[in-house]
Amino acid sequence: MTDPFAVMNAIGLVGFAFVGAAKAVEERYDVFGVTVVGVMTALGGGTTRDLLLNRVPNSLQSPGEVALSLLGVTAAVLFVHFLDDGHQHPVVLTADAIGLAAFTTTGALLGHQAGLPVFAVVALATVNAAGGGAISDLLLGRTPFILREDFYASCAVIGGLAFWALAQLGAAAGAASAGCALAVLLARGLGIGRG
Amino acid sequence: MTDPFAVMNAIGLVGFAFVGAAKAVEERYDVFGVTVVGVMTALGGGTTRDLLLNRVPNSLQSPGEVALSLLGVTAAVLFVHFLDDGHQHPVVLTADAIGLAAFTTTGALLGHQAGLPVFAVVALATVNAAGGGAISDLLLGRTPFILREDFYASCAVIGGLAFWALAQLGAAAGAASAGCALAVLLARGLGIGRG
Amino acid sequence: MTDPFAVMNAIGLVGFAFVGAAKAVEERYDVFGVTVVGVMTALGGGTTRDLLLNRVPNSLQSPGEVALSLLGVTAAVLFVHFLDDGHQHPVVLTADAIGLAAFTTTGALLGHQAGLPVFAVVALATVNAAGGGAISDLLLGRTPFILREDFYASCAVIGGLAFWALAQLGAAAGAASAGCALAVLLARGLGIGRG
Repeated sequence: MTDPFAVMNAIGLVGFAFVGAAKAVEERYDVFGVTVVGVMTALGGGTTRDLLLNRVPNSLQSPGEVALSLLGVTAAVLFVHFLDDGHQHPVVLTADAIGLAAFTTTGALLGHQAGLPVFAVVALATVNAAGGGAISDLLLGRTPFILREDFYASCAVIGGLAFWALAQLGAAAGAASAGCALAVLLARGLGIGRG
Repeated sequence: MTDPFAVMNAIGLVGFAFVGAAKAVEERYDVFGVTVVGVMTALGGGTTRDLLLNRVPNSLQSPGEVALSLLGVTAAVLFVHFLDDGHQHPVVLTADAIGLAAFTTTGALLGHQAGLPVFAVVALATVNAAGGGAISDLLLGRTPFILREDFYASCAVIGGLAFWALAQLGAAAGAASAGCALAVLLARGLGIGRG
Repeated sequence: MTDPFAVMNAIGLVGFAFVGAAKAVEERYDVFGVTVVGVMTALGGGTTRDLLLNRVPNSLQSPGEVALSLLGVTAAVLFVHFLDDGHQHPVVLTADAIGLAAFTTTGALLGHQAGLPVFAVVALATVNAAGGGAISDLLLGRTPFILREDFYASCAVIGGLAFWALAQLGAAAGAASAGCALAVLLARGLGIGRG
């Protein structure tokens, strides 16, 4: 529990896998399809980020990330029928928002460490945070909700800009990361509140 | 004919290209569209595998793979109208099953050789075997059949697990490959038989 | 203005971003969605090309490419309502055709420089030229128009073959590039004329 981002990342993996699997359950996919959609929702953004950064994806090297994704899938299969309107439940929205903040921060941090310009920092933050949801919508034959919902991917753009601005002002990586995550949570909270 | 996997791989490339092109013919695509969908079905899984492994795709470096894919496309354009229910014909199902086994084995083998953990071995086997079919469905505006058909991608998962288990038990790469391919063919045969 | 391909590339980026953003406006996406679709249309083909060539995408390293894309998006948001049938307007078709020629040439040139065989040269030319349009159609929930429109991606194939043939005949990269671009413009012009 000494690394706040590992904790946020873990909550986000479980939350993203839950949301993706819940959507696949709604579409009456079989167990294999639900698992694939849930795992791709959790790992797809980070995998795309690593492809863009020309690295072997972390998701292929980290059994822990896969295990957390499968935990989220299992939770969705077991509990989604008990929730009214599954993927809009406050618990799910909260876990999803924490994941959005964690994945935005990781993407911005890796882009910054690779010495890339501001567009790349924001793009990697956004791809990392919203890519998994876009992939799962494509797999389900839907147009990506991130392009239609006003305040979702925009929160990742705001977070990426916050990271870049703080780093330009001389903030250390840890401080820029904290500012980025807080900006995403604030923006997303306001977006959900306005509904 | 000294390398059984090269033979299986060749049959699989032709079979996958045939199935993909036959689907595009059904959707009344023009010759260019049919060729793209057929070639992407044959080469898409291996190309995605190589992207994940951070290598220049083999498909871009091997004219032989392209030629075999174009052979499958040509066969589909010439013969699909003579078959009732083209891509469910026993000859096509057999070539497709052989391709599924060959591509699963290649993906598992490359993941194992890269020293990746069990999830990555299974994921690369599945992406290699089922990725082309998923890409062609997306190009045709369908939801990927691999997520809806019970025993298709599951066969690749079973094969990847078989490869990994045999390797853990000390089997050489050749023996693990043979066990993987047999497991896929057995699982797929049972799946088709149960219909 | 000393480098004709930089000029063509710039016109193409603006034109492709305009076309993509105009399609998203038609689908009533919000400003964020319109921007993403426009930028992905302009940068998606080159980014996919760089992934296949195993390089960090140029789009992430070049703020100029992003700025030109945003210029095209801005133009679409401001002016698309003044054009009858926005993305079929002669100005847009011309910019799009120049972009098609420029992106085909860049893709063929990079494939040739990487020492890849003829299929890879043609595939990279086609992916570079038509990949952005395909990605934007997927994001909009449409089947890719490049698979349905007779003479669009085919022009990139013709251009890639022209590049490769000229290089085989001993032409320098500059001459092969000029021949490639002219072949694409000629083919596309004929295709629109027959329309």
